[in-house]
Amino acid sequence: MADTAAASARTITPPELQAYIDRVLRACGFPDADAAKVAGLMTEADVRGSDGHGVFRLPMYVKRIRSGGINVRPNIRIIKERKAQALLDGDNAMGHLVMARAAEIAISKAKDTGIAWVGARSSNHAGPAALYAQMPMAHNMIGLYAAVGNGNHVPPWGGIDLLLSTNPIAIAIPGAKRPPILLDMATTTAAYGKVKMAQQRGEQMPVGWMVDRQGNPLTDPNRSSEGFLVPIGGPKGYGLALMLGLLAGTLNGAAMGKDVVDFTTDHVTPTNTGQFICALDISAFADVAEFKAEVDEIYGQMKGSKTMGGFNEVKLPGENAWGIAQERRAKGVPLPAELVKALNVLAKDVGVEGV
Amino acid sequence: MADTAAASARTITPPELQAYIDRVLRACGFPDADAAKVAGLMTEADVRGSDGHGVFRLPMYVKRIRSGGINVRPNIRIIKERKAQALLDGDNAMGHLVMARAAEIAISKAKDTGIAWVGARSSNHAGPAALYAQMPMAHNMIGLYAAVGNGNHVPPWGGIDLLLSTNPIAIAIPGAKRPPILLDMATTTAAYGKVKMAQQRGEQMPVGWMVDRQGNPLTDPNRSSEGFLVPIGGPKGYGLALMLGLLAGTLNGAAMGKDVVDFTTDHVTPTNTGQFICALDISAFADVAEFKAEVDEIYGQMKGSKTMGGFNEVKLPGENAWGIAQERRAKGVPLPAELVKALNVLAKDVGVEGV
Repeated sequence: MADTAAASARTITPPELQAYIDRVLRACGFPDADAAKVAGLMTEADVRGSDGHGVFRLPMYVKRIRSGGINVRPNIRIIKERKAQALLDGDNAMGHLVMARAAEIAISKAKDTGIAWVGARSSNHAGPAALYAQMPMAHNMIGLYAAVGNGNHVPPWGGIDLLLSTNPIAIAIPGAKRPPILLDMATTTAAYGKVKMAQQRGEQMPVGWMVDRQGNPLTDPNRSSEGFLVPIGGPKGYGLALMLGLLAGTLNGAAMGKDVVDFTTDHVTPTNTGQFICALDISAFADVAEFKAEVDEIYGQMKGSKTMGGFNEVKLPGENAWGIAQERRAKGVPLPAELVKALNVLAKDVGVEGV
Repeated sequence: MADTAAASARTITPPELQAYIDRVLRACGFPDADAAKVAGLMTEADVRGSDGHGVFRLPMYVKRIRSGGINVRPNIRIIKERKAQALLDGDNAMGHLVMARAAEIAISKAKDTGIAWVGARSSNHAGPAALYAQMPMAHNMIGLYAAVGNGNHVPPWGGIDLLLSTNPIAIAIPGAKRPPILLDMATTTAAYGKVKMAQQRGEQMPVGWMVDRQGNPLTDPNRSSEGFLVPIGGPKGYGLALMLGLLAGTLNGAAMGKDVVDFTTDHVTPTNTGQFICALDISAFADVAEFKAEVDEIYGQMKGSKTMGGFNEVKLPGENAWGIAQERRAKGVPLPAELVKALNVLAKDVGVEGV
């Protein structure tokens, strides 16, 4: 076990990271298969560069698990179902398990019906939206995912009461030779995870991420509780966050608006998190190979655009994450010193080997 | 027929407006039922305050119809189909006819399967997205609609080549006693229709709607061809426009990217417009009355927020349009002088009575 008092930044291979998460979760009482599944998905988050949604979250997850705020032996089950649709009760499981199951069901149904939509209630934080949106791609499908965020950091446009979360959406569309086009975005200028990362790194936030209750820029992440995240396009981002919240939360009987539990401050109350995934079978619409070639063509058109001053190239949604994943699979995942320290404190705490 | 030389602004009742559009379309060769359907939907656009998407577009539609760029006797048909999905070939019909048909099919399928998605190719401009997103609500369903816009006014983020349209999205969710929550937004700060309206009204545009190819604000709508619309949230709005374009265009075999035809300058080439509609049957997820009451509850939470300085109240998506519709159904639709003139020139041209 590393010296927790004098931890320094280090780089860890994805299998090492996954094994670390796996042993922490098993020590917390998860069945082996569930620990392995969650560890795999959390590692994938770090590999893709979603640093605010991977192992960074593990200490908080464990705090919640040990407080009884997450069910480590859940009975995730379908409570309503039609040919192209299902509603899951996650039984307060880790969100990763609920949404991996939701994706499996959506993919299976879409093969028959062309499209399927699976919603979930009584779920929990599941990491980055991209993880689930990309699952249908292996089956020549398009994936679409959205979630109610676990904490309200956004007021309705023109208001100051924190009634909405950053409610992210992800859409994943496979290409042929090019990387997939994979949009994964919060409906605010910055996701709350980025604020937490800035805080952990001791960095200031750029103007535009948050404003205080008087509408003035807020750049100190330690003061984040005094302000709120700014929605993209003002009223439009507010509208998107609201609609996604109604679809992923209210429609599924999950928390939305005032019912949302802030899991960074409350580690006990079930979050009743809501998410949905939609899978579209490409072959229902088009020849799969022709469609993928067309996606490559559009990819190339965007890349081929002349650039504005200040830009070296045009990027596609998901291109940065794809590049980071290539690099991290080859060279490992960098962990800042603060995170190494926190992970080793956690390991000691649950009685397993650290990172 | 009004004096076309000295037209002044006037207010017209919705039935009068609908009758005017109907007679123009019949004079252009549309079957009575199709003329009536398009006239009804275009009037609904004006009633809801979508001034850039209603009768304002009629002269351009007619120009295209008379150039052979729209098929007035189309065979709109399903070319691919599964239980919860269909792909329509619009046979170059008016988009209103194609997407009204798509909505009917989606609603019918969703009753059985819980959700259904219908895409279209070889369609045309169909007016505001809200018209189609709201159709499922009468069947206790949620509607979701997106389209590839008819003209590229947006470069990929960091680029200057106009490869994307404003690709709008609309989502409509019914409440119980409150108005429905209905988001209808372009993925740019302003829709191109608003630019055209500012031009027709002789008004300048606010900073933030458009920038020129050097990234400087562009406020003169007469110079709109020299610049481009700004996507919401920068790269996020670009990402949304791209993904919606791939879903509404590429997946359906419709135009996207460089294939998009600008129907304001080219009145002959078929636009091969792509759109899709998705209907979600609320009863597949929840008790309909309970869900609608929950939507009202969320509506009330947003309205009840304390306001920021500069705001008198919080608005819900669709609230403004709902209010305008109530007023215009009672008091009529105001038509600016320039529009009255254009509509009377058009009427004379096709040999029917003006407004």
